Amino acid sequence: MALIVKKFGGSSVANAECLKRVAWTIAESYSEGNNVVVVLSAQADTTDELISKAFELNDTPSKREMDVLLSTGEQASVALMAITLEKLGLPAVSLTGWQIGMNTDSAYGSARIKSVATERMKAELDRRRIVLVAGFQGVNKYDDITTIGRGGSDTTAVAVAVALNADLCQIYTDVDGIYTADPRLVKNAKKLDEITYDEMIELAAQGAQVLHSRSVEMAKRYGVEMEVLSSLKREPGTKVRGVNKVEHTKISGVAKDANLARVSIIGIRDEPGVAFKIFRVIANAKKNIDIILQSANNNSANDISFTVAREDLVSVVEILEENKSIIGFSEIKTSDNIAKVSIVGAGMMSAPGIAAAMFEALYDVKVNIEMIATSEIKISVLVNENDADRAVSALHEKFFD
Amino acid sequence: MALIVKKFGGSSVANAECLKRVAWTIAESYSEGNNVVVVLSAQADTTDELISKAFELNDTPSKREMDVLLSTGEQASVALMAITLEKLGLPAVSLTGWQIGMNTDSAYGSARIKSVATERMKAELDRRRIVLVAGFQGVNKYDDITTIGRGGSDTTAVAVAVALNADLCQIYTDVDGIYTADPRLVKNAKKLDEITYDEMIELAAQGAQVLHSRSVEMAKRYGVEMEVLSSLKREPGTKVRGVNKVEHTKISGVAKDANLARVSIIGIRDEPGVAFKIFRVIANAKKNIDIILQSANNNSANDISFTVAREDLVSVVEILEENKSIIGFSEIKTSDNIAKVSIVGAGMMSAPGIAAAMFEALYDVKVNIEMIATSEIKISVLVNENDADRAVSALHEKFFD
Repeated sequence: MALIVKKFGGSSVANAECLKRVAWTIAESYSEGNNVVVVLSAQADTTDELISKAFELNDTPSKREMDVLLSTGEQASVALMAITLEKLGLPAVSLTGWQIGMNTDSAYGSARIKSVATERMKAELDRRRIVLVAGFQGVNKYDDITTIGRGGSDTTAVAVAVALNADLCQIYTDVDGIYTADPRLVKNAKKLDEITYDEMIELAAQGAQVLHSRSVEMAKRYGVEMEVLSSLKREPGTKVRGVNKVEHTKISGVAKDANLARVSIIGIRDEPGVAFKIFRVIANAKKNIDIILQSANNNSANDISFTVAREDLVSVVEILEENKSIIGFSEIKTSDNIAKVSIVGAGMMSAPGIAAAMFEALYDVKVNIEMIATSEIKISVLVNENDADRAVSALHEKFFD
Repeated sequence: MALIVKKFGGSSVANAECLKRVAWTIAESYSEGNNVVVVLSAQADTTDELISKAFELNDTPSKREMDVLLSTGEQASVALMAITLEKLGLPAVSLTGWQIGMNTDSAYGSARIKSVATERMKAELDRRRIVLVAGFQGVNKYDDITTIGRGGSDTTAVAVAVALNADLCQIYTDVDGIYTADPRLVKNAKKLDEITYDEMIELAAQGAQVLHSRSVEMAKRYGVEMEVLSSLKREPGTKVRGVNKVEHTKISGVAKDANLARVSIIGIRDEPGVAFKIFRVIANAKKNIDIILQSANNNSANDISFTVAREDLVSVVEILEENKSIIGFSEIKTSDNIAKVSIVGAGMMSAPGIAAAMFEALYDVKVNIEMIATSEIKISVLVNENDADRAVSALHEKFFD
């Protein structure tokens, strides 16, 4: 008998038919003797509908009230699933964020999880009930409802798995595992049986949207084994854990992120502290930057380029212009027709020739590289957005076919 | 400066336009210096939609999970109203049943309120915030969500007003007060400036659907002054309080209840305890009965007739048939084309001739009376359903025109 946490996303619980299908998946695991905790997202479209209702009233609603509003979506999901399981004759109990003691800080809309109480969930599991937990939501020390933002219900599922010391945290999605590349882009993409936390984090950071890196980082920190699998097919997915148990190719995947824009600050003074000033003002505005490239010119002025999420481009440029006199630069150039293409693999950097093979593959299909960034387990290149899909296919063919 | 509790129903918060209109009503009262607590229902249709979602999955969902599901409707309403008030620059905070400490017993779907904590609401009012309370919902001692059933958000509003010792509890509806008869039936119906708790309770019990008697009973017990007024018109409504402050006609209203059926049990033995047995088995099944009439025949067998809610007719007859051998009777006759028409007025019984005038008015329009029931402040007659509207008009003309 194992303790298993299962998470289903909004499309898996979108309507009565979906709810019944998921109920059977839960029933099967429960009937095998497992203790089962299920984390659910809001039904597909519910969150968007609530957001549009709010913005019809006020284009700058407070984050506190948005959290009160949006958390109703997950609460409705867990109640509906409990009702579905009751129909199958299974004992189930739905619980909200505050009911399970999902304690967070007070950063409404993007709260950090501080602790998860286990008494209530354990008491229900001891009674052999299926515990249904509303994802995405928590409660702060003032007893106010919060939502946890990035990673949402995936992160709830891992946090619950950590708190209960679960044997496995299964993330059910509309794909059946982690692939060597996006199967919609690359027809020969292969499903991986397993992948390490670090590789998964890099793949997520480089644009693979199956799992959010936040949830994987938490799973890695506490050693919770994850599995990504399909809510439609009844077959094993991809295990995410500390060490791969079988040998496999050094590259675990190719990823693309097209939601990027590049900012180039031209003519900054070649003196200490300038980069610090630039990234401090951006960090103060809570905007994330990604790849950074600094190039030295022949004269005394330098350029510095970096990438930001495309939706942050306008506000980042505004912030920089407001601080022009403090930072000191001559002009800002931007581009939003770029994409990042990455290869990810544990220990890749210790295998000679991977980078060369990557650049060769791109050269062969005439893809121009604008910026390069590397880490221990990934190499990313910035390319023209129109070249990105061709680059992904070429890299996948080079390393997997 | 007064402390005012305002309650708005589902049709008053149905969409963005309605929410904005209600927000202005709240803003006006707040700007006059009052402390304002607002109790809201779920947006119109939301509750019905949630119920139909649940019944699509399971035609006998547990009451616990239905309460988890339905309580999301009121939670969404208060968040949306807070967001609307923020747009007007007003400080508002939404609170759920568990957040205000609306403590109930564990009778899911029809929980009784045990106590209302005031710390959180008082702290928010001290900060001059408008407090928005989700109606209809509470929390039991296990930290499970409950709903309070009959009277719903009206009862929440009065309970909050009692707990906070509010100066006034205003119930906003789609009519602008309590009328001497249903204005849709009687074109000369007049709005009352005030009415006593007892009269209001009788009117509600006799079919007037503006206020539920449960909320008025609670207001009476704790002496909270209520006002029923329109959420559309900006004018005074009808005050509901212990004693009328101005003299008025002895009859305060004419009411109709068509949601009735009559059950006649024929041929019961004329011996002690038979009536007890009948009403005990019905009470055990938690069905309410209303008017009872026992008639003695010439022989040793009697008949007994009573009314029940129309939706309970089938199950009440089943219960009686199951217990036929215990009770002892020859047959059951039923009718569901009946209606109850009542006149209500404090001290009515001490004014001679009221009953006679009532029966005369009905005789004049050829309405046959099937049963009569009286109390200190009301006279009800059972008539054929097709005669009911004519009876209401005739009575209103007799006593008010």
